[in-house]
Amino acid sequence: MSGTLYGVGVGPGNPEDLTIRALNTIKKCDLVAIPTKDKEQSHAYRIIKQAWPEIDKKEVLCLPFPMIKDKETLEAHYEELLLQVLDLLDKGKNVAFLTIGDPTVYSTYLALHKRIRREGHPAQIVSGIPSFCAVAATLQIGLSEKEQEVHIIPASYQGEDALSYSGTKIFMKSGRTLKGFIENLEKWEKNHPCEIYAVSNCGMQDEVCYDGVEELVKNKEMMPYLTTVIVKEGNKER
Amino acid sequence: MSGTLYGVGVGPGNPEDLTIRALNTIKKCDLVAIPTKDKEQSHAYRIIKQAWPEIDKKEVLCLPFPMIKDKETLEAHYEELLLQVLDLLDKGKNVAFLTIGDPTVYSTYLALHKRIRREGHPAQIVSGIPSFCAVAATLQIGLSEKEQEVHIIPASYQGEDALSYSGTKIFMKSGRTLKGFIENLEKWEKNHPCEIYAVSNCGMQDEVCYDGVEELVKNKEMMPYLTTVIVKEGNKER
Repeated sequence: MSGTLYGVGVGPGNPEDLTIRALNTIKKCDLVAIPTKDKEQSHAYRIIKQAWPEIDKKEVLCLPFPMIKDKETLEAHYEELLLQVLDLLDKGKNVAFLTIGDPTVYSTYLALHKRIRREGHPAQIVSGIPSFCAVAATLQIGLSEKEQEVHIIPASYQGEDALSYSGTKIFMKSGRTLKGFIENLEKWEKNHPCEIYAVSNCGMQDEVCYDGVEELVKNKEMMPYLTTVIVKEGNKER
Repeated sequence: MSGTLYGVGVGPGNPEDLTIRALNTIKKCDLVAIPTKDKEQSHAYRIIKQAWPEIDKKEVLCLPFPMIKDKETLEAHYEELLLQVLDLLDKGKNVAFLTIGDPTVYSTYLALHKRIRREGHPAQIVSGIPSFCAVAATLQIGLSEKEQEVHIIPASYQGEDALSYSGTKIFMKSGRTLKGFIENLEKWEKNHPCEIYAVSNCGMQDEVCYDGVEELVKNKEMMPYLTTVIVKEGNKER
């Protein structure tokens, strides 16, 4: 009988944000898989280790997903990872693939999930706290009330179109494009009443919160990859 | 010294989706507050009870939030709830207000949170798995990959505008407006390649999943309040 692949969301950074199911799934699995080349580089592994140090006794499968955009190279690489995972599942092993945040929101796990299911093997998603919920909790703000819409906009976003959505806009993992985005935002907010916040490395020891566009502008050169920017329509009321 | 109000997200329904922090917060608080007139009516209370039956020994404060839209009546009601909570905080009590899903996404807790902070008392948000993440996990689908945007549209939505957003659209707690929405969706999808799913009472014992617009149309008369509809741009690939 085939083993099962579990895509386990471990939340954005604080080990207390782990769910009971995530922890139980990891404990019962034969192996833990991580998308980096070793344990030390994996945020997700560190999060679990703080909540459950015994994870160090588990066998670890390193499946580094390259951060490249060339489709062919990426496909070939996925194919190789897939074969490694399939081989384990065929041997009846259950594998917990760790992913920060929630596996359904911009995770590298999804590509593997679809491929494994396409091959007829069982793969299951275990929800985690998505970073934007933890970010809002850290900032002590709501994301949406009553009729407000919420829009989640991915990393590579650069234009101004998404800023014109109504309600709350969440810009995820802005990375290298963050500086340009903040410059756009600075111009845009002059004519649009809004609240602007950001959190870098939410839930981690080096977490930083920013309140207002001025703080973002001042720090735009040094913000890390895991930065979430929130733009709420309307004037501040707290 | 003032007690603290905690808005605790308990996830959408399955007790295993509770976070370590949510459970610890409830355990350490002096009282548990729920937005219904008794324990039996509270989904959130039932979720905790399955994970931690000892909750029955906690003192429970019932703060029923009326489902009304008249602003003045609502304000007067909130004011009354506020005074009850303030009185407890002034006595140094810590209060865990339970809310299904995540407290930052369309929760009744947010109104109380803002008022308590405005009065200078401490209030903190404890993240929970939002229903739409659990819904995607149940359906075994991703919400967003690569450049895809995600749009979360609240209950009362009726028009066609939100359907034209790119990427993934999540329609939350569609309630009484669901039937009309499904009728719109049925017309709309004829000219727009998309995948359509829904989950009712996600994570609960009476959870139901729907795949494809035909299943939604067939069941539109009997779908419960806690129904989430997901519309993903593009043709199905699984």
